[in-house]
Amino acid sequence: MAAEALSSARQSTLRTANLGLVLRTVCAAPEPLSRADVAASTGTTRATASRLADELLAAGLLDESERGAPTGPGRPGTPLVPGSSIAALGMQVDAGLLAARVVDLRGRVVGERVEDGDFVGSDPMTTLHRLRAVTTDLLAHLPDVRVVGAGLALPGIVDASAGLLLRAPNLGWSNLRPAELLHLPLTPTLGNEADLAARTVAESAPGRPGPHRDFLYLSGQIGVGGAAVLAGQVLSGTSGWAGEIGHVCVDPDGPACRCGSTGCLEQYAGRHALLSGAGLPLDAAPGELAARIERGDPAARGAVDTAARALGVALAGVINVLDIPTVVLGGHLGELADFLRPALQEHLRRRVLSAGWRPPTIDAAVALPAAGATGAALKVLGDVVADPARWLG
Amino acid sequence: MAAEALSSARQSTLRTANLGLVLRTVCAAPEPLSRADVAASTGTTRATASRLADELLAAGLLDESERGAPTGPGRPGTPLVPGSSIAALGMQVDAGLLAARVVDLRGRVVGERVEDGDFVGSDPMTTLHRLRAVTTDLLAHLPDVRVVGAGLALPGIVDASAGLLLRAPNLGWSNLRPAELLHLPLTPTLGNEADLAARTVAESAPGRPGPHRDFLYLSGQIGVGGAAVLAGQVLSGTSGWAGEIGHVCVDPDGPACRCGSTGCLEQYAGRHALLSGAGLPLDAAPGELAARIERGDPAARGAVDTAARALGVALAGVINVLDIPTVVLGGHLGELADFLRPALQEHLRRRVLSAGWRPPTIDAAVALPAAGATGAALKVLGDVVADPARWLG
Repeated sequence: MAAEALSSARQSTLRTANLGLVLRTVCAAPEPLSRADVAASTGTTRATASRLADELLAAGLLDESERGAPTGPGRPGTPLVPGSSIAALGMQVDAGLLAARVVDLRGRVVGERVEDGDFVGSDPMTTLHRLRAVTTDLLAHLPDVRVVGAGLALPGIVDASAGLLLRAPNLGWSNLRPAELLHLPLTPTLGNEADLAARTVAESAPGRPGPHRDFLYLSGQIGVGGAAVLAGQVLSGTSGWAGEIGHVCVDPDGPACRCGSTGCLEQYAGRHALLSGAGLPLDAAPGELAARIERGDPAARGAVDTAARALGVALAGVINVLDIPTVVLGGHLGELADFLRPALQEHLRRRVLSAGWRPPTIDAAVALPAAGATGAALKVLGDVVADPARWLG
Repeated sequence: MAAEALSSARQSTLRTANLGLVLRTVCAAPEPLSRADVAASTGTTRATASRLADELLAAGLLDESERGAPTGPGRPGTPLVPGSSIAALGMQVDAGLLAARVVDLRGRVVGERVEDGDFVGSDPMTTLHRLRAVTTDLLAHLPDVRVVGAGLALPGIVDASAGLLLRAPNLGWSNLRPAELLHLPLTPTLGNEADLAARTVAESAPGRPGPHRDFLYLSGQIGVGGAAVLAGQVLSGTSGWAGEIGHVCVDPDGPACRCGSTGCLEQYAGRHALLSGAGLPLDAAPGELAARIERGDPAARGAVDTAARALGVALAGVINVLDIPTVVLGGHLGELADFLRPALQEHLRRRVLSAGWRPPTIDAAVALPAAGATGAALKVLGDVVADPARWLG
């Protein structure tokens, strides 16, 4: 902050910062804002706010809302909303699906393709060529939007700056450059599926705070991905590899995991572990497991209780270290949240040191197939909102 | 940043920010800085830098170094160093010691008292009155410094804003206000021992970066405290209760812990656990354990291997979630680091998902009795460095 203060006399820096501030203010607001609202929120004059808004309108980053409403005494303002013609492409490959989704600056899905499939141990070339076909078809049928960037969510650890997927244990992929195989007109940046899916909880639209800002997100897929979110920001760690809650060891004498360790959380709470523990085929839906519990099936109940205990051990450890006592369950864990919650809360109460003062809470994420694809698009749009001057030429 | 840019026209804010910037620049430098160095580092003019430095000199926050050295062509500069007359008091109560230490703005220990004792299950009133006596004696014998604030490090979770110790399992203390019992002229702010001790690794002097900036710190005491440090900042969590690595569960079927859970890390790697595992009395020194391992004592070796396995499970989980692959061992774990490291590294290589790309490293902290007391003083001085204008009237 102080460094900026000393250098902020440079006009171009001020303009850049102020454009970003105005765009973020409009994007964060739950309702359209008048120019006067923007001036008040940003602590600037109405003339300055209006001039900055005009620049953003000209670039399509803001729109004037059609329904200008009276804003108190004086002439009616023309409320400002995020621009509907700016959008981003999010893609996802997971063990059970392929997805491509285009989201605009207002957070609306402009178009999408989601295809189920079994991509465990799949050939990367074949799978990514299928994603390319799906995406190309989607882009060819879009309404009139400018797609400003793309992201790809993958269930593994990536080196985003190098465009390299290091390892996705459940796909069986390692050391490859997906963008080269995809060969799309827009080169996607890579991200971890759970890190990106967590953005759909932290943000209800690009730059607009979602239902939670500080939470642990668990993404129930074939495995279990995760992300820790602090003040709306996904904790990335020193190399962007943070959040691998699925590989927290809950019992060193437990079953072997694909990652090379033993007793990882996903060996108890991953989709395959839950389904096989319940005596169901691996391609059964989580809804079938829920139906069996409701019918009093002891194997189904037992599988969910085993998962709850493992989640309790792993999440208690994470909460003891991070002091983020809100858990949001996504994917199949979200679908099973009501069955997991009582036992999980009991385990957390016992194992979290601070539970006596603030017991952890457990929420389910809004069900959204391929949340990672939406998160990948939100990330691209978040970069636009953070620094709109780059898009103004 | 942008918000500051819009409001930075206010001169007082700029002055405040710039005073902080100059003080931080001098404090962060490993060598004394000339006014020209300060101007260059802060991107301001020499006249401005000089005027700001004069204000800080007048307040005692900076000193002119006695040995003015030539700084290239032109007249010799008078180098600036942090002020030696500004200091802070750090105190600590731990299961095995009481300490009071005064540290100045250059990071030098101006005076200290450290007393060993057994404070497990002690009466808070008696123990804190003893700390009061020790501290009062220390303050009465200080050289001429201005003690600007105080901190108290405790082995438990605190509510710093309320001045409340919520729970320190190994002292057997809960729900008390230590400052009221201490009744010193300076009211100390409370902090977690390991969080504060971690500052002694992150900072080599107030505001000066230490040997590590991103690391997990483990404080081996009767129990095991911890802290996660990112970019030099201790991760505090939503209520300041983060870092309780000692209560990460490494085996849900393991021994009961004082905290109410089972199989917590400190049941394997705490001082009492290690000593009793080795067949030593609970008041033996970690050096005795080390000596027995060197003599080939199988019980001592076994206790350390058990601790290394538990540390491996707990730290691998934390590294998988946080992606901070540097571990710094303090307290008795630091003293035993050479014996723990080979097995611990092997466990981490197997259980950390990203270990193939960046294997975690394990360092020992410089041995420092009552590092929490030093950290408590550093925290007070860090607040001074962050906002010196508050100290200028």
